[in-house]
Amino acid sequence: MEPNKGLVSALFLFFLLHATMASPTPKPHIKPRSPPHHPCRHLTFYFHDIIFNGKNFKNATAAIVGSPPWSNRTILAGQSHFGNLVVFDDPITLDNNLHSAPVGRAQGFYIYDRKDIFTAWLGFSFVFNSTQHRGSINFAGADPLMNKTRDISVIGGTGDFFMTRGVATLETDAFEGEVYFRLRVDIKLYECW
Amino acid sequence: MEPNKGLVSALFLFFLLHATMASPTPKPHIKPRSPPHHPCRHLTFYFHDIIFNGKNFKNATAAIVGSPPWSNRTILAGQSHFGNLVVFDDPITLDNNLHSAPVGRAQGFYIYDRKDIFTAWLGFSFVFNSTQHRGSINFAGADPLMNKTRDISVIGGTGDFFMTRGVATLETDAFEGEVYFRLRVDIKLYECW
Amino acid sequence: MEPNKGLVSALFLFFLLHATMASPTPKPHIKPRSPPHHPCRHLTFYFHDIIFNGKNFKNATAAIVGSPPWSNRTILAGQSHFGNLVVFDDPITLDNNLHSAPVGRAQGFYIYDRKDIFTAWLGFSFVFNSTQHRGSINFAGADPLMNKTRDISVIGGTGDFFMTRGVATLETDAFEGEVYFRLRVDIKLYECW
Repeated sequence: MEPNKGLVSALFLFFLLHATMASPTPKPHIKPRSPPHHPCRHLTFYFHDIIFNGKNFKNATAAIVGSPPWSNRTILAGQSHFGNLVVFDDPITLDNNLHSAPVGRAQGFYIYDRKDIFTAWLGFSFVFNSTQHRGSINFAGADPLMNKTRDISVIGGTGDFFMTRGVATLETDAFEGEVYFRLRVDIKLYECW
Repeated sequence: MEPNKGLVSALFLFFLLHATMASPTPKPHIKPRSPPHHPCRHLTFYFHDIIFNGKNFKNATAAIVGSPPWSNRTILAGQSHFGNLVVFDDPITLDNNLHSAPVGRAQGFYIYDRKDIFTAWLGFSFVFNSTQHRGSINFAGADPLMNKTRDISVIGGTGDFFMTRGVATLETDAFEGEVYFRLRVDIKLYECW
Repeated sequence: MEPNKGLVSALFLFFLLHATMASPTPKPHIKPRSPPHHPCRHLTFYFHDIIFNGKNFKNATAAIVGSPPWSNRTILAGQSHFGNLVVFDDPITLDNNLHSAPVGRAQGFYIYDRKDIFTAWLGFSFVFNSTQHRGSINFAGADPLMNKTRDISVIGGTGDFFMTRGVATLETDAFEGEVYFRLRVDIKLYECW
């Protein structure tokens, strides 16, 4: 038996059985709770954010550029930083060491969007230009940052990551006062070209 | 003659004639004007935005955090609010009642981007954590808010809305001065996993 | 035979046959370096950005609405404009002439995100409402604007560009001081509905 014929037979049998099961209530919108297959690429990185606080200009990789009326742009606002817009250009590393050789830059913004708990909305890119990766991955989504892990969307990519899509799981790996934090990003891509 | 054969013959004749007409500019890219199939999921929600105006801190769900040089962050700017960046964390309800039990939060930002008419650019998420929905839907797009309805893109999702895509139709359902508005969001998802 | 058992049997047969085909080197993650096919649509436009500088309100199509603590919103900040958030509503033209009849508006924001070189993060839409195009194309991504060309993602669309995806190549076509620039945008869409 040729492989293709076997495949076709199995599929035919599958659909035949499926049709025979004839559930009385039609289910036009099948929605599995878990993704139907494994990621086509799976990457893990860390990135490091040092917020400008009026004294650390040289080391800062991020700055507050928007703030609510009751606050300024040098100190993160009270009320869970609600209304602070932060721009960043953070080094990406393969391990959790800030001083490891960066493999790219995480560039974009986050904006604290809730008065009562810490949560943010993110729009940013991972920009790679190394021997290993060339191109960018674009992300967007809500980051309820008090949760141990939270998922955001991979909305596109360029270069090595042409047109990719998927989900990235964020985890706060370290947090030092209101100046430094480090995120672990677990990227699972389900559309690879 | 069977219908299918007729159809095939007609199509063949059509392409033959088409080929004979030999248009000098080839048209390799067929682009249907309407979506080819029904949504795999169709959801409707309302969300409610109460903008901080200097006096309503407790009830406010949104705040102006960026403004043009000719304005401040307590009052929406003249010139169609051009340049006002607003952050929000708005309750999502199933009906148009602000006091209904919220089923999630709409979190993100809008930014008024035109001097002569009211129009905005939106980046936000619907974040669900109820028995009915768990996960998030991410949106982006232009909102020419003087139009009765306007479409933005569903650019991704997580959890129950893993990797989803589609279009959301916004409609301003209520508008009270410059403090409160309510949007009806009709979400049509065409990629469900 | 119970339905589930039939399903399981069919699936088992399917996987068995699949396993029998047994390619010697497993290739779970096929990742071609170049896109596998031609764009289904290819469009080229120009858009023109005139930044408000305190004196050109009438002509300005863009304004600084966020800035770092060390700067204001009338003049682009030093340090590669790091932290400046700019909102825009720019005319789109078919050629490189600012005074050509616009075919749409480019609306959204860019945010300078790096201290040492000029680079920005973009979120915006092309909004068309002409006889030729109706609908919108949504973009997001990093713009290392000192590079001759750079790619960002097309993350969605509406109307004629329903659910589209692809890549847009940006090229700075003209740059006059810190007030005017013109971008050439080469849009390659790989998902057309």
